[in-house]
Amino acid sequence: MNDVVVRDVTLRDGLQLVSAVMPTKHKIELVRFLLDCGLPTLEVGAVVRPDRVPSMADTLDVVAALDPDTLDRCWVLVPNATGARRAIDAGLRQIQYVLSVSPSHNKANVGCDVEQSLDGLAAAVALGREHGVPVQVALATAFTCPFEGQTPEDAVLAVVTDSRVAGVDSVVLCDTIGQAVPAHVAGLTAAVCEVAGSVWFHGHDTWGLGVANTFAAVGAGAVAVDASLGGLGGCPFAPGASGNTALEDVLYALRPSWLTPTAYHRLVARGQDLLAELGEPSRSRAADGATRSPGSHPWALAAGSPR
Amino acid sequence: MNDVVVRDVTLRDGLQLVSAVMPTKHKIELVRFLLDCGLPTLEVGAVVRPDRVPSMADTLDVVAALDPDTLDRCWVLVPNATGARRAIDAGLRQIQYVLSVSPSHNKANVGCDVEQSLDGLAAAVALGREHGVPVQVALATAFTCPFEGQTPEDAVLAVVTDSRVAGVDSVVLCDTIGQAVPAHVAGLTAAVCEVAGSVWFHGHDTWGLGVANTFAAVGAGAVAVDASLGGLGGCPFAPGASGNTALEDVLYALRPSWLTPTAYHRLVARGQDLLAELGEPSRSRAADGATRSPGSHPWALAAGSPR
Repeated sequence: MNDVVVRDVTLRDGLQLVSAVMPTKHKIELVRFLLDCGLPTLEVGAVVRPDRVPSMADTLDVVAALDPDTLDRCWVLVPNATGARRAIDAGLRQIQYVLSVSPSHNKANVGCDVEQSLDGLAAAVALGREHGVPVQVALATAFTCPFEGQTPEDAVLAVVTDSRVAGVDSVVLCDTIGQAVPAHVAGLTAAVCEVAGSVWFHGHDTWGLGVANTFAAVGAGAVAVDASLGGLGGCPFAPGASGNTALEDVLYALRPSWLTPTAYHRLVARGQDLLAELGEPSRSRAADGATRSPGSHPWALAAGSPR
Repeated sequence: MNDVVVRDVTLRDGLQLVSAVMPTKHKIELVRFLLDCGLPTLEVGAVVRPDRVPSMADTLDVVAALDPDTLDRCWVLVPNATGARRAIDAGLRQIQYVLSVSPSHNKANVGCDVEQSLDGLAAAVALGREHGVPVQVALATAFTCPFEGQTPEDAVLAVVTDSRVAGVDSVVLCDTIGQAVPAHVAGLTAAVCEVAGSVWFHGHDTWGLGVANTFAAVGAGAVAVDASLGGLGGCPFAPGASGNTALEDVLYALRPSWLTPTAYHRLVARGQDLLAELGEPSRSRAADGATRSPGSHPWALAAGSPR
């Protein structure tokens, strides 16, 4: 379990539903802080229309401030081949291409039909190959859609096995509105693992199942999972979406080998500061507990090692 | 997964940390309401010292108001053989006997050492056998102790395999202060399943892992799990303890076959009323979501069936 890669998505999914705009220099500082705490990899923003998602407008300014070693640990999200081109030109080394399995959410989220998104993905993958940049596909609404209800497993498998998806680095199964339950997550993850090389899970804690779903995914074969500080985040084009699974809860549960108690408490404190700065509520129980009664935190009681 | 028995413990663990006293007639009404919603089994109180846990003082008055068919679905908690005797005399048909694996918490919680508790358990089991009443043993601090840190697995196994435990109906592994993580829960549950016939899991959501731990236990062989409305509860003699795993979250995640969408929404509404009545915060994300945006609730979207 503690070999699972945890990707922090605070700077992308975390900020995209927040009304306060975070200054670019604060974003750059947060990237450095998170990596310094030991997080293996981060999503630092999205190359999307600034009129649609203003909080992501400065993503390439953030990227421009990062050195190549730092960029090796960063991802950005793109919704089309143009975004992929801009990201590669800006020096990104890893790209997440998003499309929704459900047609109506794809239309609402990226403004085109699924076929067009798949064509764009093929172009992005070709471009990535040319530049040695792996392209990952994120399948939004892989479990349920705010407009269409439950997404059929066949629809997900049809996308995953489409020839235009063949060259992707990995597939991220996204529970966009947090409505999936562990049995559904385990079942779909296992089914997709059979046809895709590398499966990731991106969950939301809207209905209290973020951590349980994360473990269900990992138990069924997912190699990496997304989370955000304080459970910030949600899709602006999916009614009812709210917080990502909280990074503090996921790390508390997984206890990865790179995480020291000191780094954990630094993350908790930084998360609380960030939420205060943005005027957002904390959705992390583990962070709330660690803040409310630091003396009762098990990592405070344990001497030294987090395990 | 949806064959797992869910036991509601609102009226016992849920109320024992609450300062407001719930009138006896409200408790009786809540027992009937929960059973009417379809919950297979409930813990309705504890036979303990009223000066130590005032909110449980009227447990046997609640029991006296219940008919035999209702009592067949109810449990009470007892801390010693005297309590077991009083419960049986009052007509209880199932008894949970609590002891803590860690000596210091056993002292704080039930006022004696573990050996004395085991002697009392043997007496309670003998008494139960005489009257055809199954006695279950709840092992508090099976994972971590607020005074002693992590509980060694060997200590748990030593209790479970003690000859005085041989006659119990089932063993409940209790994460008394909610500090266990899924890997720990899965490991200990599997180990205890090897030596005990029937293993239950009782979790708390203090650190955000209530549902994830519940699924870890079930995945490792637990046949039943505890939860409470709105995540009410916590041990008054365990510093740092707070809410049980919320019933609304567990049911949302497990979707047991007996649960209709209508019953689910009734439970959510009753939970919100109860928390308001007691002046307690909701710790259920699923209930919060269902209350905040009922239209986006997946069971509201789905026509008819909860699955």
